[in-house]
Amino acid sequence: MSDFALITFLTDFGWGGGYVAACEATLASISPDARVMHVSHEVRVGDVQEGADVLARVAPLCPVAVHLAVVDPGVGTKRRLIALKARRGDVLVGPDNGLLMPALEALGGALAVWVLDPARVRAQAGLPEERISFTFHGRDVFAPAAALLFSGLPAGKISTEADASALSVLAPRVTKIGPDEVCAEVVEVDRFGNVGLALPFDRFKPSHPNVEVEVVGEGLPSWSARLVRTYGDLAPGELGLYQDSWGQMGLALNGASAAELLGVQRGMLIKMCEPTSLGDR
Amino acid sequence: MSDFALITFLTDFGWGGGYVAACEATLASISPDARVMHVSHEVRVGDVQEGADVLARVAPLCPVAVHLAVVDPGVGTKRRLIALKARRGDVLVGPDNGLLMPALEALGGALAVWVLDPARVRAQAGLPEERISFTFHGRDVFAPAAALLFSGLPAGKISTEADASALSVLAPRVTKIGPDEVCAEVVEVDRFGNVGLALPFDRFKPSHPNVEVEVVGEGLPSWSARLVRTYGDLAPGELGLYQDSWGQMGLALNGASAAELLGVQRGMLIKMCEPTSLGDR
Amino acid sequence: MSDFALITFLTDFGWGGGYVAACEATLASISPDARVMHVSHEVRVGDVQEGADVLARVAPLCPVAVHLAVVDPGVGTKRRLIALKARRGDVLVGPDNGLLMPALEALGGALAVWVLDPARVRAQAGLPEERISFTFHGRDVFAPAAALLFSGLPAGKISTEADASALSVLAPRVTKIGPDEVCAEVVEVDRFGNVGLALPFDRFKPSHPNVEVEVVGEGLPSWSARLVRTYGDLAPGELGLYQDSWGQMGLALNGASAAELLGVQRGMLIKMCEPTSLGDR
Repeated sequence: MSDFALITFLTDFGWGGGYVAACEATLASISPDARVMHVSHEVRVGDVQEGADVLARVAPLCPVAVHLAVVDPGVGTKRRLIALKARRGDVLVGPDNGLLMPALEALGGALAVWVLDPARVRAQAGLPEERISFTFHGRDVFAPAAALLFSGLPAGKISTEADASALSVLAPRVTKIGPDEVCAEVVEVDRFGNVGLALPFDRFKPSHPNVEVEVVGEGLPSWSARLVRTYGDLAPGELGLYQDSWGQMGLALNGASAAELLGVQRGMLIKMCEPTSLGDR
Repeated sequence: MSDFALITFLTDFGWGGGYVAACEATLASISPDARVMHVSHEVRVGDVQEGADVLARVAPLCPVAVHLAVVDPGVGTKRRLIALKARRGDVLVGPDNGLLMPALEALGGALAVWVLDPARVRAQAGLPEERISFTFHGRDVFAPAAALLFSGLPAGKISTEADASALSVLAPRVTKIGPDEVCAEVVEVDRFGNVGLALPFDRFKPSHPNVEVEVVGEGLPSWSARLVRTYGDLAPGELGLYQDSWGQMGLALNGASAAELLGVQRGMLIKMCEPTSLGDR
Repeated sequence: MSDFALITFLTDFGWGGGYVAACEATLASISPDARVMHVSHEVRVGDVQEGADVLARVAPLCPVAVHLAVVDPGVGTKRRLIALKARRGDVLVGPDNGLLMPALEALGGALAVWVLDPARVRAQAGLPEERISFTFHGRDVFAPAAALLFSGLPAGKISTEADASALSVLAPRVTKIGPDEVCAEVVEVDRFGNVGLALPFDRFKPSHPNVEVEVVGEGLPSWSARLVRTYGDLAPGELGLYQDSWGQMGLALNGASAAELLGVQRGMLIKMCEPTSLGDR
């Protein structure tokens, strides 16, 4: 019996081409009883921040697991390959580029940091060392390491311990909370066109039910948004402000795309204030 | 041992963003031994009818299962959250908006109708009641309910029984069968560009092997289609009429998209008749 | 206990519409304990070669398995339905159109070739024979056969043995290796825009670190590419030549799409030579 209920798996590989399956096949070869749960393989190419966001959402909802995550634009360079033991009991495996850090935090922070030794990972997994590619460490090192750790191999057999303070972290999101207005980065545009902001819902409590919303730096007129509980509370075409599924502030339409209406993408900034503050523009 | 072989899972969430995985993680937390079979998460956003169609195709092919389905544009509003016991033994969990009804019928109809009580679902699953969002009942109520019912919890612990006659149903599809011609709604355009119609194949038996086909209301010339068994029976560019994989009438080309040729999308109407009936236009 | 660790599954169906799930439901009905590993369902529609490539990559990385693969533009015609026993112990199930052949070779070649008898497959699986469609043999014959063979049914119960020499094969890829230059077909454009060639990496050993690259027949100027180990070795905008994840020659940019830069798609030809050979164009 493993200490872990399953292996979760997130990448930016997409399903085409067999890259995801090559990793899952490797997991199944080394640890045949491990259940694999796919988190997403549609992370934008090389978008470490998006991968980190999605993993941090899902990991705490799982039973204690090994989380394998590969969004790794620096594959084959000197960036480190790491495994992290989280306080909740989970293990995270991936590149040391910040990808694992929000999930680590969501799982209670680090109990141990291990820098993987690809040669020892391969040896323990019974794989030929000379077959490590420079471009597919997901298959060649990360998946074998995840499978071995799932199976209960002590981390010391395939890694050396390191200091948590040396881990790479992501640049912080833009969130400015002033007395009259807030400004927050767009962190998500979901499939429905809902816009998620880097702003915890309860950090902005307007006194009016209607709020002025402006896309920063685009020279566009501002919008009026009404504070609602869910999409269905909105009239057709009415812009709503709501607590999204992750406790953050979101912008939505009912049955249409708020992102399209506003012309926003991830990374843009949204300013919000009480109607009076923006004046009579 | 569960009475169910697995939990099937269908949504309009797409794989990006972690919404599907958040639900699967919840299933795995509550019912760790449940196998999850993904039916589709590519249902068009908010397209209850498409979700219902796909589920009704797949559910009867499964062993007896719990079917979790969430295409729920009314999430957070007063629409009911339901579970249905089908005559075959399956349980269906989802919103009361018609999504589950075609699958229920394909599984023999309703033995019991339960209206889920979100607070009791959360309590039985050991989840905090106050954390129910208004926008993600898939994760917060439906997945927990599906996992509990899979695990054998009596439905009465998390729901109250209701009357099947009060369930929401979908608007019927357009299918008109006349003496000389038939007219049927396009219910599917598949990845190959094949066009599926709301017309059981054996309801239209032309006496000629060639049939006139017209897209209703588009002002386009009609096409001639030949009755064939499969795509490979068709010459390049030749339009074919055939019994599709679900026993319905379909239109196809060989190695190309009939939907593109005809310019049709789901919801449009197709009229078909014997060559003479359309006259000499 | 099955002789096989799992059933892998590859198609060109896409996830929408329930076609993949219909097959998986059928597998689960007949062989409830079989783990199903999805290889890809995003193979281009009818692209047997692409499906064959992906399967051949993944199959050898799996534990010994039943490999179910359906890219089958000839469905319902006279093309044969086959199962192949590979030397490594795996069984491959699919249409006799070349799809299974590269994977078979990667698994050591054929020990046995079986031509499936749809009627006996259906009977052994307890399915009604008259319900075999002409357009969905994945659900109606291939999946039942795969499940039965996974469960240990002797192949003779559902097939007749045939000769390996009669199997359909794919047209060979274009690979020309001359004294001064090589010319190879583009076999892959991955999600990152990396270009994979039909050329084993060690078959072209330029004496200069820089190589001239030309897209054949497009009348475009040639490019200079530098031999590197991985994407991160490249400067922004610099074209790189590298050993890809499958041991083949590849072309890449760092964080951008080489395919877009070069304007290439699968099937096009790339010529490469030492800088002097292309002269002073």
